[in-house]
Parts: sequence; structure tokens; C-alpha cells
Amino acid sequence: MKISALGEFGLIRHIQKLFSRKAASTLIGIGDDAAALRLSPASVLLATTDMLLEDVHFDLSFTDFYTLGWKSAAVNLSDIAAMGGIPRFCLVSLGIPPAIAVERITEFYKGFHALTRAHKASLVGGDTCLSRKGLVISITVLGEIEKAAVITRSGARPGDRVFVTGPLGDSAAGLEILKTGGKGQGAGVRGQGAGRGRAENKLIQKHLRPVPRIAEGRKLALSGCVNAMIDISDGLSSDLAHICEQSRVGAEIYADTIPFSRDILREAGKLKKPPLEYALSGGEDYEILFTASPAKINKLRSLRLSIIEIGKIIRGKDISLIDRAGKRTPLRPRGYDHFRPIKGRAKRGI
Amino acid sequence: MKISALGEFGLIRHIQKLFSRKAASTLIGIGDDAAALRLSPASVLLATTDMLLEDVHFDLSFTDFYTLGWKSAAVNLSDIAAMGGIPRFCLVSLGIPPAIAVERITEFYKGFHALTRAHKASLVGGDTCLSRKGLVISITVLGEIEKAAVITRSGARPGDRVFVTGPLGDSAAGLEILKTGGKGQGAGVRGQGAGRGRAENKLIQKHLRPVPRIAEGRKLALSGCVNAMIDISDGLSSDLAHICEQSRVGAEIYADTIPFSRDILREAGKLKKPPLEYALSGGEDYEILFTASPAKINKLRSLRLSIIEIGKIIRGKDISLIDRAGKRTPLRPRGYDHFRPIKGRAKRGI
Repeated sequence: MKISALGEFGLIRHIQKLFSRKAASTLIGIGDDAAALRLSPASVLLATTDMLLEDVHFDLSFTDFYTLGWKSAAVNLSDIAAMGGIPRFCLVSLGIPPAIAVERITEFYKGFHALTRAHKASLVGGDTCLSRKGLVISITVLGEIEKAAVITRSGARPGDRVFVTGPLGDSAAGLEILKTGGKGQGAGVRGQGAGRGRAENKLIQKHLRPVPRIAEGRKLALSGCVNAMIDISDGLSSDLAHICEQSRVGAEIYADTIPFSRDILREAGKLKKPPLEYALSGGEDYEILFTASPAKINKLRSLRLSIIEIGKIIRGKDISLIDRAGKRTPLRPRGYDHFRPIKGRAKRGI
Repeated sequence: MKISALGEFGLIRHIQKLFSRKAASTLIGIGDDAAALRLSPASVLLATTDMLLEDVHFDLSFTDFYTLGWKSAAVNLSDIAAMGGIPRFCLVSLGIPPAIAVERITEFYKGFHALTRAHKASLVGGDTCLSRKGLVISITVLGEIEKAAVITRSGARPGDRVFVTGPLGDSAAGLEILKTGGKGQGAGVRGQGAGRGRAENKLIQKHLRPVPRIAEGRKLALSGCVNAMIDISDGLSSDLAHICEQSRVGAEIYADTIPFSRDILREAGKLKKPPLEYALSGGEDYEILFTASPAKINKLRSLRLSIIEIGKIIRGKDISLIDRAGKRTPLRPRGYDHFRPIKGRAKRGI
């Protein structure tokens, strides 16, 4: 069978079946943001890993190595955030083409260090080897959480409200600006291109240097208000579908309530698609998407976090988008699937 | 600076300096077989990661996917064994070229599962993505050990005897048979080639399906007899140098005492180099190399493990090989360095 017939998420389900017998100490295995592993009675270890491949996840003409190191840390820390955990330890494996100068690799580690140090997570190991076929990055982050506070993707209940922690679509819009700006033009230092406006550069920065919502994930997990949580890496439509599938519920999202940044609204005229499209299927925003019972909304508001209500969880399996006029359309997962690339969108990331 | 000027181990030292401030909970960071991380007062988490790249670490015309999955698990479990730990959890990241059939990926996971299940280690997570440039494998294994039992590379003391747990050189000899046999000829099912003798096939199997010395590492760690321990992945000359460097000692090895299998001795006439060469610089044997005080030798023998004494630790920095006639030659690290390939040996592994 061709792997494109199964798709990325089909493949994950297929692997899950092979390893279905879970050890007692595996509280959460394959299929959530991070694994949750019991090592002592009170505390749980969170483990997450992400691979970044040249010309699939990043393009070295769009990013410098410092920024690439930062982003490699960010995508993993974001998975720890989405479980409510504290990042503790990192392992970094690099496959390095021989033509890359040591100084660039040092820059990579400096960028990685800058973000992980800010969260007091230590680099404790890894692997470095020669790659004949482009730069290969594989990061594992280990985190910790109180046993009672772990929040998975599977706890959403009908009646829950759906929230996000910030504006969506900026990252995908930033990527499009980088791509349409042509290679080389926008590369420069940390993605800043000469001749670009402030709003354009801010969108690009959102793509190149996302900020994982560690503090937000932590507060939400400890609040006791949240039923399901995920980080928006694949796009709102896909990540909401992950929550709905694993919680066996449906959802409706009100298009008008989805938050946008000033920057994407300012640039909207120059972009190929309306901001809503980037928000629904763009991905890589690394905001947190979560659900909470309406009874908990006052307590949630008292946390003084930036949270925006965008919809609600319903019975059944349907996920719909409802527009200003009340028109309901099915909201199909349109995020990136590695093995089923959307036409005209064969490459992801920087 | 070119990365080949620094070399793999120079690069690792360079990275270590960037991240020199260790968190209190990081008992052992970069530079040993696995990191040791404190999570509770009595127990320590071991974490190790290895990357395997197509055409660098393996050649798909020499191995089937089941065997590749097995070996990917083995190289990581071996790092846990070399610290004396129990493997508990695994994360598997794969970058998959679109042309590979799902059935092959399933075979990979079955081989991985066969070995990890035998050691009761659970697959708990990972990442799967598209690769445009060959198969990419990155594995992280998490293990556990009693805090007092962790054995590093840095504890060897002058006067210690040097031991290995089994014959050396088979894996490198097996790789050479695969390579000189020509692509395709020896591929077949699990590396067994038609027209090859039993001894040749056994050497090939030692290369394709190494057995990590988990039980041996565990017994040695708990015995209280062992001062320093490492697994032989880079070759005896390199791995002994790692122990000597980190323990700030020298060593002498008696060439006559290095153990060989019947198979390598039987095939010696057909191989390009004498068995001693494969043993010293071949690598990928995944036997354990360790040092112990002579006062502990009787207790060591009572463990009823296969252990062979091959030399002793001395003061200073010199590492020498002493032959039958008593002639002493410097034993320089000649294992594989990813960024300084030895002439005529540009590719490692299957």
C-alpha cells in the first residue's frame, strides 16, 4: 500500500495498533501532544519528539541557523505546554551536511539555548552525525507535571466552550510572504528583509520565531478549568478535529470570533487568501486550543490570560463553521498531512 | 571553520562548552552513553538518542526493514546497558520517502517492537513525516536506574583491569562481507545470502542484528565492582580512549587477550584485514567495555557473566597495545568519526 493512501494520521493509527499493549507506567502513549509516563507516585514525566528536515520543514534560504535552533526548541516546548507541563530536559540530534561551517552549527545551538534557557530546560544529550542529504534535526524534550494536572486531547465534553490563547494565521501568512518574496530576498539576518513593511516583517517573525505558550499551558492545567487541550501546529481545522476525534464529540466554530492580529488584517489585501483561510488551515501558530465547561468561565477569566472564545463542543461527530449570517459549512481538517500534500502546498514551514 | 577540522568529538566538546551550566537535576549531561536525570530522591532517569540516516548508517540493499527496526532499537538499548539501566520507554521519529510502501514501515516497527518488547520497553511516542532525501530514523530511549548504581565513563582508576563482555570485530567483518559481496547479492531476507557459508552469515548477522548487553550491564552495575563502563559502538580503540580521556588515565591492552569468535577466525583468510584490525577500529560490536579494581575480580567472576580481561588502566595519558613479543605500540583512536572519515571508509554501518 502506498503511504499516501494512508496519510500521516492513518499511519499513526496503524502504528498505535501494533503497540496496543500499554505498560502500566505509560499513562498516555502515542497520539497526544506528549507521552505521560509515571515514574513516582506524585509526578509524571512528559516526553515529546519532533523531526525537522531540510526542504520539508525549513528552507535555509529563508532562515538563519540561530532562528532555526529557536524554532526547533519552540515546536517541542509547545507540545509540553499543550499538556500543561514544565519543560526540563532536551536531547538534540543533528545530521549535518559536511559543507556547513561549524559557526552555523554553533548559531543553531545558541538559538536553541536562548529559548530553552528562558524556560530553565537543560540540554542533556543528543547525537551528531554526517548527513549526505541535507540538514536533519530531531529534538526530544522531557517535561514534568503533577499527576493530577495532565490535560489530554480526549477530555472535551458536549457543552464545553472552545478557546484559543491568541491570534491565528500569522505564521502561515508570514510563510507566504517569505515564499512569494523569492528566495534570498528575505533571508538576511533573522528573516528581516529590506524593503518590507513592519507588518510584513512581524508576520514573518511569527513564522520563524514562534513563542510556545508554556506559562499559559501551565496556568490552564493547574486551574482545574480545562477539559481538553492541544497546541495549534497543524492548523485550527486539523487540531480541533484531533480533539473532537479523541473526545468523540463534534464542534461548532463561529467564524466572526476567530482572533486576528493587526498585522494580518493590515496585509490582507496583499495576501493570496483571506485571513480566515490562513487561520483554519495554516498551522504553526503554536497558540493553545482548549475546551472548558461554561460553569468555569468566570474562574478562567480570573486567570488574567489572553483567551478568546471561538465556539462550542456539541454531541455527535460534525464539526462546522458558522458565518456571520448563520450559514453553517462543514469544517474539514485542512492542515498539513505529510503524506497527502495539498495541491500547490507541497512544502511546509520555513 | 570546516566541520571536518573539528571532527565529531571536537564538535561535541564545543557544544558542551555552550551549555556548560548544568541544572542541579542533571546528574550526567552531554558526553556519556546516556544522560542521567534526577526526578525523585531514589531513582534516576536515563535518556539516550541516536540518529540513523540512509546511506550513512545503513544501506537498504543490505538490510530488510524488520532488521533495520531491530538495529535502531539495539543501538539505543546498548547505551542504556552501558550505564547499567533498565530501558523503559521509546520514542521513534521517522522521515519517510513517499515511495516506501506502508508494509515496509510496518516491518520496521515490528523489528523495533520485537527487541524492545523483549526488554519490556514501551513505545510511547514519536513523529512521522515526509522525507525528500532518504529514510531518516531518530530514536530516543528512556531508562531507569537506582541513583547509587549509575556507572559513567569517568570512574576508571590506575590499576583497574579492563574487560569486555564478548568477542570483538565480528560486526565490522560482517559489514565488509556485505560490501564486497556486492549490492543485491546479499540483501534478501534478513541479510542471509545464497551461496554464503554459515560463518559468513553469522558475521553478517552480528552486524545487522546486534544484541544489546542489557542483562550484563545491569548485573555489572548492581555488583558494585565496576568503576567505568561504555558500550563498544565506535570500536575498542575509540571507546577505550573515551574512558581514558574522561577518567584522565592511560591504558595498556594485550593484543593476545582480545577475544575473537570462531566465525571471524574461520573467515580470516578471506577478509581484507586481520581480525585484530576489525576488533580495534571496526565498532558496532555493542559489547560492554568496563574497568574494575583487581580486588573485585573474584566477586566479578562469581557473577557468572562472560567477561574477558584484556588489559589494565595506568597513570598518565598513553594508551598502548602490547603484542605477544612484548612490543608496545601507541593505540590511537581509529573508530569512525562522522566528520573525519577514514580514507576508503567513507560509509559506516549496514
